[in-house]
Amino acid sequence: MHKNVVILGAGNVAYHITRALLENTINVVQIFNRTLDKAQNFSEDYNINYTDKISEIVKADIYIICTSDKAISEISYYVPFEDCLVVHTSGSIPLSALKGKYRKGIFYPLQTFSRKRALEYDKIPFFIEAENKEDENILLSLAKRISDEAYVVDSEKRLQIHMSGVWVNNFTNHLFYIANEICRNQDISFEILKPLIKETFEKINDDITPYDAQTGPAKRNDNIVIQKHLSILESDSNLYQLYSLLTNSILKTYHDKL
Amino acid sequence: MHKNVVILGAGNVAYHITRALLENTINVVQIFNRTLDKAQNFSEDYNINYTDKISEIVKADIYIICTSDKAISEISYYVPFEDCLVVHTSGSIPLSALKGKYRKGIFYPLQTFSRKRALEYDKIPFFIEAENKEDENILLSLAKRISDEAYVVDSEKRLQIHMSGVWVNNFTNHLFYIANEICRNQDISFEILKPLIKETFEKINDDITPYDAQTGPAKRNDNIVIQKHLSILESDSNLYQLYSLLTNSILKTYHDKL
Repeated sequence: MHKNVVILGAGNVAYHITRALLENTINVVQIFNRTLDKAQNFSEDYNINYTDKISEIVKADIYIICTSDKAISEISYYVPFEDCLVVHTSGSIPLSALKGKYRKGIFYPLQTFSRKRALEYDKIPFFIEAENKEDENILLSLAKRISDEAYVVDSEKRLQIHMSGVWVNNFTNHLFYIANEICRNQDISFEILKPLIKETFEKINDDITPYDAQTGPAKRNDNIVIQKHLSILESDSNLYQLYSLLTNSILKTYHDKL
Repeated sequence: MHKNVVILGAGNVAYHITRALLENTINVVQIFNRTLDKAQNFSEDYNINYTDKISEIVKADIYIICTSDKAISEISYYVPFEDCLVVHTSGSIPLSALKGKYRKGIFYPLQTFSRKRALEYDKIPFFIEAENKEDENILLSLAKRISDEAYVVDSEKRLQIHMSGVWVNNFTNHLFYIANEICRNQDISFEILKPLIKETFEKINDDITPYDAQTGPAKRNDNIVIQKHLSILESDSNLYQLYSLLTNSILKTYHDKL
């Protein structure tokens, strides 16, 4: 596949998609960003042409919009060409958010991207959508250059996938934050929880299903312990409610009761 | 330290504590369990004397009760000696649950124990409690034979630690279960979430604080995405409530609003 790619945006997704493309010898010809210094900052790492001027956007085969959800539609107007494929990388925005006269698609990587963290790009699942089979195949080929995992899904399924990522990543991380706060209030280091967090993760990674991996007072239907924990959360209605709801959800899963 | 240990119980905690002690050349002289076959089953791995008869419990320096919380008090009556130290391994049961005339203590390992999974015992934090300094030191020495992490904490703090383990292990695992169900309903493999789960864990393991590691729609205060996710959860009041509460908790943490 000899396709030229332009990246629109210069945030964490743009940084990692650019890097993943270049590592797999895909030609990234330009980075466009409305703020020049961010585009400059990371295009210089790779010696790629960069610009903040819409009029300077070059002709390419594929344009990948890597901006925030809110900016996708506006940015999508900037591509002045018709004979090209413009895709965005969002899990929750439909194809119709792309507003130009070009061909349209989705190129959604399921991962959380931080600027300073290395990622195994070949493990990131890509979810593809396009208006026709030909463009679907172009995007599948592009994704497969980066990753072992590339799938065609419609917008509804993509939103479900995006939401399941919220449960395993955003909400899980927030539980870690809550535990961190509990430890801090007790003058205990959060470090003591890390071996337990590691084992929680490793059970799943070793292909034990989450259903089978479950342990704890709610799984055992141990109401005495549950009540003790709730009693020390009484002063914090947010944590009290969250503990109750999560416990009830586990009870419902294993003991079919609320 | 030349102490003889008797293990009371033959479940997962008993199995791993026995193994951890033996690997560190602590003398486990007997395993007692009310059901003989379970004690037999794992004591034979190590050629340790085992019994189901209270009258056959041998004299030792330390008795470690590794049963369920509910059984601790009853089992604690079985130790017929006074010149010994009897401890239990529960995170949520007070010292006073131990009923004999012997010296009493707590020997609580913060980890989730599955029979078939190898664990790095030297990484497991042990939390110690005793009635006097001398016994505290005996238990600290015993814990430090197994692990690099051993601390003296009172019962109140131990309950807080136990509860923080529920947040990072039991509740986190339940979020994985929920995501697994969402995937299953969409005919998507849970495998696609594993790289994201891995990165969630690795950020914490690489000493990024959970506060700094947070990403996602609630962190960004992205109400459009939040509403989209809630709309696809409308038919499941349990998930709808959980999603709302977790999202509100993140909003409160980063945007100081409900």
